[in-house]
Amino acid sequence: METPSFPRPLTGIIPPMLTPLRDRDTLDLPALERLIEHLLAGGVSGLFILGTTGEGPSLGYRLRRELITHATRLVQHRVPVLVGISDTAFVESAALARHSAACGADALVLAPPYYMPEGQPELREYLNHLLPELPLPLFLYNMPPLTKVPFEVDTVLWAMDQPRIVGLKDSSGNLAYFNQLRRLAANRPDWSLLIGPEELVAQAVLLGSHGGVCGGANLFPSLYVALCQAAAQGDTARARELQDRVDDIVARLYHVGRHPSAVIKGIKCAASCLGLCGDFMAEPFHRFREPERALIQRALEELRPRLILPPDSRETA
Amino acid sequence: METPSFPRPLTGIIPPMLTPLRDRDTLDLPALERLIEHLLAGGVSGLFILGTTGEGPSLGYRLRRELITHATRLVQHRVPVLVGISDTAFVESAALARHSAACGADALVLAPPYYMPEGQPELREYLNHLLPELPLPLFLYNMPPLTKVPFEVDTVLWAMDQPRIVGLKDSSGNLAYFNQLRRLAANRPDWSLLIGPEELVAQAVLLGSHGGVCGGANLFPSLYVALCQAAAQGDTARARELQDRVDDIVARLYHVGRHPSAVIKGIKCAASCLGLCGDFMAEPFHRFREPERALIQRALEELRPRLILPPDSRETA
Amino acid sequence: METPSFPRPLTGIIPPMLTPLRDRDTLDLPALERLIEHLLAGGVSGLFILGTTGEGPSLGYRLRRELITHATRLVQHRVPVLVGISDTAFVESAALARHSAACGADALVLAPPYYMPEGQPELREYLNHLLPELPLPLFLYNMPPLTKVPFEVDTVLWAMDQPRIVGLKDSSGNLAYFNQLRRLAANRPDWSLLIGPEELVAQAVLLGSHGGVCGGANLFPSLYVALCQAAAQGDTARARELQDRVDDIVARLYHVGRHPSAVIKGIKCAASCLGLCGDFMAEPFHRFREPERALIQRALEELRPRLILPPDSRETA
Amino acid sequence: METPSFPRPLTGIIPPMLTPLRDRDTLDLPALERLIEHLLAGGVSGLFILGTTGEGPSLGYRLRRELITHATRLVQHRVPVLVGISDTAFVESAALARHSAACGADALVLAPPYYMPEGQPELREYLNHLLPELPLPLFLYNMPPLTKVPFEVDTVLWAMDQPRIVGLKDSSGNLAYFNQLRRLAANRPDWSLLIGPEELVAQAVLLGSHGGVCGGANLFPSLYVALCQAAAQGDTARARELQDRVDDIVARLYHVGRHPSAVIKGIKCAASCLGLCGDFMAEPFHRFREPERALIQRALEELRPRLILPPDSRETA
Repeated sequence: METPSFPRPLTGIIPPMLTPLRDRDTLDLPALERLIEHLLAGGVSGLFILGTTGEGPSLGYRLRRELITHATRLVQHRVPVLVGISDTAFVESAALARHSAACGADALVLAPPYYMPEGQPELREYLNHLLPELPLPLFLYNMPPLTKVPFEVDTVLWAMDQPRIVGLKDSSGNLAYFNQLRRLAANRPDWSLLIGPEELVAQAVLLGSHGGVCGGANLFPSLYVALCQAAAQGDTARARELQDRVDDIVARLYHVGRHPSAVIKGIKCAASCLGLCGDFMAEPFHRFREPERALIQRALEELRPRLILPPDSRETA
Repeated sequence: METPSFPRPLTGIIPPMLTPLRDRDTLDLPALERLIEHLLAGGVSGLFILGTTGEGPSLGYRLRRELITHATRLVQHRVPVLVGISDTAFVESAALARHSAACGADALVLAPPYYMPEGQPELREYLNHLLPELPLPLFLYNMPPLTKVPFEVDTVLWAMDQPRIVGLKDSSGNLAYFNQLRRLAANRPDWSLLIGPEELVAQAVLLGSHGGVCGGANLFPSLYVALCQAAAQGDTARARELQDRVDDIVARLYHVGRHPSAVIKGIKCAASCLGLCGDFMAEPFHRFREPERALIQRALEELRPRLILPPDSRETA
Repeated sequence: METPSFPRPLTGIIPPMLTPLRDRDTLDLPALERLIEHLLAGGVSGLFILGTTGEGPSLGYRLRRELITHATRLVQHRVPVLVGISDTAFVESAALARHSAACGADALVLAPPYYMPEGQPELREYLNHLLPELPLPLFLYNMPPLTKVPFEVDTVLWAMDQPRIVGLKDSSGNLAYFNQLRRLAANRPDWSLLIGPEELVAQAVLLGSHGGVCGGANLFPSLYVALCQAAAQGDTARARELQDRVDDIVARLYHVGRHPSAVIKGIKCAASCLGLCGDFMAEPFHRFREPERALIQRALEELRPRLILPPDSRETA
Repeated sequence: METPSFPRPLTGIIPPMLTPLRDRDTLDLPALERLIEHLLAGGVSGLFILGTTGEGPSLGYRLRRELITHATRLVQHRVPVLVGISDTAFVESAALARHSAACGADALVLAPPYYMPEGQPELREYLNHLLPELPLPLFLYNMPPLTKVPFEVDTVLWAMDQPRIVGLKDSSGNLAYFNQLRRLAANRPDWSLLIGPEELVAQAVLLGSHGGVCGGANLFPSLYVALCQAAAQGDTARARELQDRVDDIVARLYHVGRHPSAVIKGIKCAASCLGLCGDFMAEPFHRFREPERALIQRALEELRPRLILPPDSRETA
């Protein structure tokens, strides 16, 4: 791999982008453009499309490809685009990877195939077969609550010997695991360790992680960017203060519904309230109904003044 | 729905058919024909393709469609063909359903979308949206170890009010749950309750279930058919005796590997030893290597005399 | 061990006896006598005291010892008395065992210590140390939902080599596991395999298990005894019919509360409605309040005619 | 509650003290004194006896009482002594609490009763009944891997309204949960939030937690005290550096065995290598055998130079 198309390690906030939909099989292109510009204006370091928050697994393959095509076209290499290719079918992952490269995306993101749970040796053999099919560098995506199978520490250690694997996003919520990986990455200074759960950004980055893949950054990107910067600079007081605002988002927007989908529903509903994109969700999920939307709306009104940082705040943060 | 194309309730053994593969994206058509004829000669009541044992989620969509095309063509309506359409993407499930109907398949089988866990109200709403898109009757597939989400009793009760849902296959291994469904099905005499784990066929059918969807029936269909018949006739002694042979299969063939994939690997390896089809498995899994294959081979040699029933044994069973 | 004080294998229904309490630290002796006579009149094969249904782990040690003293005195060897000695502290289990022997109890019942989960080798070493301290034969108690740790198949295989371990009660609900043990017990014709979940009695005993340890037998012992006899005789039709009545008990009495304690609360409340003993429960649990009690009361009125078998029905069953 | 006997909130390192044993039912009193002096010399803020690391649930009640008697006598109020009273039996918890108060202990620590899982309303009612029986202030102990039941956020919110509950130790490893509690504790400035997993001390304390209950502090108390101080002062660089040493302890000492007991076995074995106390463990666990002990010994030799901080280092940290 010649010159990398993005800085290594990749640092900062890389939002798992929402997928704006007109219906279950149609992209909302104007909203896509609006959302991308909103995120880039907020100072994000990259975009991760077709992740969990982007409802990747709920989308048909034609639509997934369209999203890759349009997102890369709209971003125009202003930031790296990372494409989620997780799938239970090897050939579909490989096809999405080829399409991503053809469109000029920068990297791929892969969780373990999420139907039948693999043993760790099976997972390594799978990666061994898949890597040669991938024309772009790969980030691992550790998400055991949804995939059942984690990338165990020994498997990540193996992955650190693969030059084409360049980082890992951890959504396990287990900082002890994440800290272990941070220590192991000493030999791979180009590896990115990115934290998923946004409640943990300050703590992860204060101890040396590189950034966050935070769903809430779809809504208030500059807040998350400022938080990540404060923590990266060791400014504990400022990091605590900004983390507290992020925790308000989590507390008020992500627990309106009763099921695990409440987080994505909350983000998409809030994005709709903020005029960023519609709240249509692909099955098996559905947008919030009126009562839930009213709760989100009210929470946004109450929280918003503290969540939108003036542009200069990022400079000084 | 006019005249049903298959008896209701569907009873007997409906094997979850292995998918014979030449490589990760190519069907082995001669083996497919051989396997189908082997199963029909064994007296099975139907075929379930693209299930867990058929590696459905591991197969690309083109190949899944090809399998539907060829299996229905080869079966020629001698027994009903049930097609697994479980998917995380609604539009892909619907497309597979349309293709199945176009090919003359008889029914569809659906597990909950298996990435983000749905709450039960979400699952019912999903089914409510999906049912109108399905041109064939539907069997539910309860498989919580792989989908995380079960069809809870209240959801099945709701499903029993949907005329187009005609049965449920339970692979939870929880006979108390299954017995509960059996009692609830009193109002739907056309509903099929089929048991997945083959260790439980005798017990499930002795108490009134309709049949089994047993992976091992790919290998020795007449044994499973005879077991199911004995239990359906309340012949406890014969059912115990035949269940004991099935338990030998489970004990000797399904625990050679250490991971959950060991069951499918064992069946596919044994099918290869028996000359039914090759043992190639689609990623993320791989065929057994030599030492494991030797264990399977030896187990088959030792067990086989008791596993192949003479044709007449089925008549008298 | 000279002449066994009870038949081996122990067969039939051995109720996990409720512990009648006046308050959290006082036995209700008249109720204890009433309950014991009720159970013996129902034809049970033994009594299991200080189990889960008997709130064993919730009771202080002085009270546990008192219960052993009085229960053995009241039973007077008419049936064997099995005493639960499960505990996180080795020395307390051993002390209870000694007291049980001194009182003339017949056997002990032990689940894995239930705080820090043991590995299976640790569990075997623990049993190895404990067995010499036990003056009575031992039944294992497999209850992974409460102990976290099961007796895995290999550990039970090891236990079958210990002459002083004479059986296992399985409350896992996993009949495939239980069937496996049944097959392994071929070499120990004196071993008892007893099923816990009462929804599974017919199925377990039809395939060769020896009996059940069913909470509902506190209420209607003759029903469970008749069910067990019908299944043991291979009378599938009668077993199905009686199992159906037991399943009514489960459906109507055990799901009134929302927590796992609902089963015991339901049984103790029903026992109180039937005049067998009071419904006081030791902390951390508490008796049902009025609305729940009313539901139990109504269910009992509706179900009762089918649940109390005339004495002769047992003879002919 | 008049003048508190210890500062509120309690801050710093409160080691979950090992229990030195001569055999399964005998305290090693000289070792107990040695260990206590070692800990106090290391600058700890308190001692927590009869916790998980102290093998509390494995010890008989007589021995538990003896340990309370002797530990309080030896400490002589130099630091507060917190006593674990978790038990499945209410009356035994209450009796331990009374004995603790009689001996001059300062506070109690309670996890949910750990046999039958309680619903949260049941857990609150249990606490409501227990609190009046407790003559000392109470810390909650959140340890869901061992108790099955967590103290959910709403339950902790309720507990913050009970003046006699003065803090919580969280061993869940879920920092997002812990951070939530920290935010809620804003109204209870006297509440202590203490972190269990020692891998998380730096991150927990940097964001505002009060201290740690770290098993490894039995071995190298001054290291943990210095880490906690650095984090409390917002000295991120120093906290990272010291956390890295703690992570070495975790990596090298806590994963020598294969079961969950490996952590305690590792600490007790290391304590024995360091001459602090013997490595005898109460059943159901047992000390490491020679090969494991050799690994611990070697790890200690390699790590030790970085783990023992010169006395003055704490001053300047």
